[in-house]
Amino acid sequence: MRVVVALGGNALSPSASAGSAEEIRAALVRTSSVLAELVARDVSLVITHGNGPQVGRILLQQEAAALTVPPMPMDVCGAESQGQIGYLLAQALDSELRARGLPQRALCLVTQVIVDGRDPAFRRPTKPVGPQYDEVTAHRIAAESGHVFLPIGAGRWRRVVASPVPLGLVEAGVLPALVGTGHVVVAAGGGGVPVVEDGPSIRGVEAVVDKDRTAALLARLVAADLLLILTEVPRVQVGYGTPSARSLDTLTVSEARELLAAGEFPAGSMGPKVQACCDFVVSGGSRAVIGALDEAVDVLFGSAGTSIVP
Amino acid sequence: MRVVVALGGNALSPSASAGSAEEIRAALVRTSSVLAELVARDVSLVITHGNGPQVGRILLQQEAAALTVPPMPMDVCGAESQGQIGYLLAQALDSELRARGLPQRALCLVTQVIVDGRDPAFRRPTKPVGPQYDEVTAHRIAAESGHVFLPIGAGRWRRVVASPVPLGLVEAGVLPALVGTGHVVVAAGGGGVPVVEDGPSIRGVEAVVDKDRTAALLARLVAADLLLILTEVPRVQVGYGTPSARSLDTLTVSEARELLAAGEFPAGSMGPKVQACCDFVVSGGSRAVIGALDEAVDVLFGSAGTSIVP
Repeated sequence: MRVVVALGGNALSPSASAGSAEEIRAALVRTSSVLAELVARDVSLVITHGNGPQVGRILLQQEAAALTVPPMPMDVCGAESQGQIGYLLAQALDSELRARGLPQRALCLVTQVIVDGRDPAFRRPTKPVGPQYDEVTAHRIAAESGHVFLPIGAGRWRRVVASPVPLGLVEAGVLPALVGTGHVVVAAGGGGVPVVEDGPSIRGVEAVVDKDRTAALLARLVAADLLLILTEVPRVQVGYGTPSARSLDTLTVSEARELLAAGEFPAGSMGPKVQACCDFVVSGGSRAVIGALDEAVDVLFGSAGTSIVP
Repeated sequence: MRVVVALGGNALSPSASAGSAEEIRAALVRTSSVLAELVARDVSLVITHGNGPQVGRILLQQEAAALTVPPMPMDVCGAESQGQIGYLLAQALDSELRARGLPQRALCLVTQVIVDGRDPAFRRPTKPVGPQYDEVTAHRIAAESGHVFLPIGAGRWRRVVASPVPLGLVEAGVLPALVGTGHVVVAAGGGGVPVVEDGPSIRGVEAVVDKDRTAALLARLVAADLLLILTEVPRVQVGYGTPSARSLDTLTVSEARELLAAGEFPAGSMGPKVQACCDFVVSGGSRAVIGALDEAVDVLFGSAGTSIVP
């Protein structure tokens, strides 16, 4: 069985983490144990992951040194974060696979995701990236850089970038063969490095693609049987945060779409996850599941998490 | 014909570069044109590259933000630089390949290189990394971090790390298959991220592996016919910097080893390149060549550069 797993931030570092290498390595020991358990059960595993906090820290570092080192644009920062996280994740998982005597190795492919330069998201950036600023500083940086800032409350502002829809992966021609080797492939970290096609050229753009939507694309590309979106919560809820909150075992795509349209799932968190599951199932996937990282094996077998089915 | 190309710093950015993304992209347009010409001549290409200036800039950024963002150890910085450079290089080359109507794509695999934790290099670090400091600052950072600093002249000091001998690649099990797809593979950037094996575990170490010696290892691993080390100079010289300097067309391994032993080639520059060529040829490679990036096609066919042969 071939499975694409999308890991959320909690899989990569503890929630109150300062983001040191030690903290990330410690989080990855636990995550690798869960993932190796899937491999031990004969799952052909493809892994993708978020990168929000990691890119945020790279942006902070760039800003602190901006007078001596030219800051890189968002696409290059995303590629750096793929190297950073992909390396640490592949190394931790590889160690766990070796400890269990499993023959599969883990490896990381730097991955670019194609978006449309005319995607309406570019006209209305919504995805916050990097540190918070006061209003005066935000306006100053905006004037200097052309970046867009939006207020996030309490007098704080953050830079926002477009979050366009992923259309394909630049590495599509090789990913199925790489996954076909049987090794565990880490790919499309942070949703992939966003690029646009410009005639024969491809070039990076200042954007962030939702990692779960790219995971759905990746799952279709490698003909995965299952897409697992592993996060902190055991199940999707309707009426989230209200006294009548109710956890869901299973949703059909049409039920999920109705709930999405009714605004049941927040745009910044559960919304894109449910959308990604719908994308995958509509395009021929048999099942997509949203569940807790710690329950990954049960999520795989359908006894935990919220399954989205045709 | 399968060829491993090792790119020096001049292929990635102009010598007086501040290291902006625009400068790197401009340098990579020229480099990609040369590399695509090799692909157009039916070369199955595997590329590796240095990362000294790029890691130096990442270290500067880390240091500038050290009060708010925990700095990453050298191995993680190396992985970040693989993501950064691998992304930009694969994207530039891919664009050039597409513009020529060639079916090969370029892609980057994050790569770890195995070293021996008992390598004597760890007891005598020699490889300078990161920025220069005055003596007082160097001593303070050394006391705080345990890092080793050495004077580099004119009252300036730099951190030095070990440069151990590369023994193998963690991704050895998949690289031949990946190269076998016919696509252009960028791997082992910066000499690979150095790791040691500790029972079943692998873990990163604070070191830098010479990229040319790792290139020789990579060339043997993928059964390359040829190893090309492309740099700024058209040929290896004996008597370098003296009035009797003489460029060499061809060296046998035993001639090259005699000249190495006689101290003809500087330890920090031509020495490891000649050593890497010897490593490759001794282990069964038919020819290794050191030459200029701009003359790559002639270097390939043996009419430029210095060839090292059995």
